[in-house]
Amino acid sequence: MFTSIRPDNPEGYAEALDRMKEIVQEIPGFLGYESARTPGGIGITVAYFRDEASLAVWRQNTEHQAVQRHGREHWYDAYSLHVGKVERSYSFDRR
Amino acid sequence: MFTSIRPDNPEGYAEALDRMKEIVQEIPGFLGYESARTPGGIGITVAYFRDEASLAVWRQNTEHQAVQRHGREHWYDAYSLHVGKVERSYSFDRR
Repeated sequence: MFTSIRPDNPEGYAEALDRMKEIVQEIPGFLGYESARTPGGIGITVAYFRDEASLAVWRQNTEHQAVQRHGREHWYDAYSLHVGKVERSYSFDRR
Repeated sequence: MFTSIRPDNPEGYAEALDRMKEIVQEIPGFLGYESARTPGGIGITVAYFRDEASLAVWRQNTEHQAVQRHGREHWYDAYSLHVGKVERSYSFDRR
């Protein structure tokens, strides 16, 4: 779970996000992500991985690490990251 | 982690949300929450509890359960709920 505060459209952000989506989707064990952002407020992105090993591939990707550094230096005012293990899930869909 | 799709301002929603915030904040072991919503898109709310026992108090609160039922009947098109255990956390703040 990645929660962040940043300006609306920092330079280079959209392109980097597109590239990160490409990379993460190639990782075996990546299950998907959901993202929401309140205009002028915080953004929350939740990414799901099958196991620690597949998450480690993402964490150790050098291109991802370079973008993380760039984000701390240029884009984000603040963020928090929580890593956890999903224990149970429920869903509802009327559609 | 609660991810939902619903209309922008369903009837009774804002009042119920205010009431739910009151109730949950009284629960010992409730640590806080973060919420983001993309206009016209999905909303993600992440609530943090100290342990399973404090989460159970929230889950079993009868007023909360009544609002959940009302939400399924009247507000939400779809939602998913994932319950998990935070294993590690990182944060960054330049401010």
